[in-house]
Amino acid sequence: MSLSEFKLIEKFFNVKNKAAFPAALAIGDDCAVIDIPEGQQLAVTSDSLVEGVHFLADSDPALLGHKVLAVNLSDLAAMGATPAWLTLAITLPKADEAWLEGFSRGFLNLADQHAAQLIGGDTTQGPLSITVTALGLLPTAGALKRSGAKVGDSVFVSGVIGSAGLGLLLAQQDSTEQYNEDLLHYLKPMPCVELGKQIRDLASSCIDISDGLAADLNHILEASHVGAILSDSLLPVTDGVEQYIQKLGGWSWPYSTGDDYQLCFTCSEEQEAKLQNMLKGYRVTKIGEIEKELGLRVRLKDGQIQPLTKGYQHF
Amino acid sequence: MSLSEFKLIEKFFNVKNKAAFPAALAIGDDCAVIDIPEGQQLAVTSDSLVEGVHFLADSDPALLGHKVLAVNLSDLAAMGATPAWLTLAITLPKADEAWLEGFSRGFLNLADQHAAQLIGGDTTQGPLSITVTALGLLPTAGALKRSGAKVGDSVFVSGVIGSAGLGLLLAQQDSTEQYNEDLLHYLKPMPCVELGKQIRDLASSCIDISDGLAADLNHILEASHVGAILSDSLLPVTDGVEQYIQKLGGWSWPYSTGDDYQLCFTCSEEQEAKLQNMLKGYRVTKIGEIEKELGLRVRLKDGQIQPLTKGYQHF
Repeated sequence: MSLSEFKLIEKFFNVKNKAAFPAALAIGDDCAVIDIPEGQQLAVTSDSLVEGVHFLADSDPALLGHKVLAVNLSDLAAMGATPAWLTLAITLPKADEAWLEGFSRGFLNLADQHAAQLIGGDTTQGPLSITVTALGLLPTAGALKRSGAKVGDSVFVSGVIGSAGLGLLLAQQDSTEQYNEDLLHYLKPMPCVELGKQIRDLASSCIDISDGLAADLNHILEASHVGAILSDSLLPVTDGVEQYIQKLGGWSWPYSTGDDYQLCFTCSEEQEAKLQNMLKGYRVTKIGEIEKELGLRVRLKDGQIQPLTKGYQHF
Repeated sequence: MSLSEFKLIEKFFNVKNKAAFPAALAIGDDCAVIDIPEGQQLAVTSDSLVEGVHFLADSDPALLGHKVLAVNLSDLAAMGATPAWLTLAITLPKADEAWLEGFSRGFLNLADQHAAQLIGGDTTQGPLSITVTALGLLPTAGALKRSGAKVGDSVFVSGVIGSAGLGLLLAQQDSTEQYNEDLLHYLKPMPCVELGKQIRDLASSCIDISDGLAADLNHILEASHVGAILSDSLLPVTDGVEQYIQKLGGWSWPYSTGDDYQLCFTCSEEQEAKLQNMLKGYRVTKIGEIEKELGLRVRLKDGQIQPLTKGYQHF
């Protein structure tokens, strides 16, 4: 089945999806043109997914469409930004209508949930890879940076940690136990957009966990010139991950697996009561504390303290 | 040689390149954060280059870095926008320092020429492909759209047409005649950013020629609900292209080859004198006229009129 590039775009992507901030000019010209509301800054992020690296060959295209957008919205969430506009560059081996139907459905469904408008992009022929650029709005000077963690701040994570990593193992094993919670966390991560906006004015620093809690929290520590100690007994994990850790016989595994797309953030003692009160509707867990001593450490269940550094490395 | 993703970014891309509009937050957090000056809109475009499709394997990485940025700046030029910020997503088979050094040099050199700041991106492992998102500024409601061409307007092109197409043939033949003007037009297209800004308030419509003059002018005609007739004798071509057409024995070849990255635009009779006066420093050629009759036609040198529709099709 062969369609021209322009017909493909028209058919699957030139739809009027929900837009909280409709573009002055969307798909169909050389550029999209957008207006930034007064008093707002623009948050910009780009992330790619590549077949065989970020997802398995023959992945469900609808889940893939969801995921490539989710990982970008997760970056906006980590700044406390409101998603507004999206561009989508797809490279695919052939113009497969069934694939494009599924992919666009997964992508646009999540876009609609956040009223983020698809305003442009590119489709090209080649090995399957997808790059999204997501644009979000932030009150001026309101961005939730990595660099604000202070000694004495508490360290929080949203959701559960390591679950998507276990889901990946299940997906690779082609497990018959379809769609348990770990597999679902891997296949269909939900970006913490609302949480990011809620904590924006209360948290002192924030990052989304894409490369593993250890690696990503280390980015906060390096940007803030501080260290941290976590309590292993406080780490929120699923039953599946708990069992998997016991089987492995170690403790460090969930700290180093990627793809969770939860938020890790810090909060000062003064703001903590307000934050805890605001977050009653969310699963958020305090797992440790910022310290002066550089580096990241974990207090194990037996009281022993171990250093923690590794995360997912792309090369 | 293996470097981690973060060290790669740090080494080659986390440089302070020239910025006409410095970002509030650039590379190093979950998102970049930018301020849009009052009275300005943001123009947004994304374009990908894929090895084997848009460029030959073993292409010079510096030329590739230049080209992937040039094709995006060309889209901004076609709207009359001023380049301001860039994101860069690179997928590459391995972390090859020599390749990255060349690529980043070519990319950042052109970025510096336009004082466009690299504010973020992604590096991933996989088959070589590159996606750039370029953000530019436009006075509010000043965008140069495809849809404004009117019956009686003149049709103009910048530079020469078909030259990059001939350059591609030379590159494929691995010609010993290195770096003639056609090869250079293909390898190192120069986006018409200044020209786009000059004509923004005078032209009635504009597009950049990436898929061939016929295909791209047809986009203007469709968006504007008009037709056009061109004079083949007026088409600006290089000596190389002139000789190649004679060898082929046809006439239509330069209208359908891609990669020129010139601007094609229309202008009303009332604005034409002002436009011509403003463009004395540029190579710009009037090649035809907008007509009521839909479709694109060419008056050949013998007076015969032929229809013209085809351009480069990605699938």
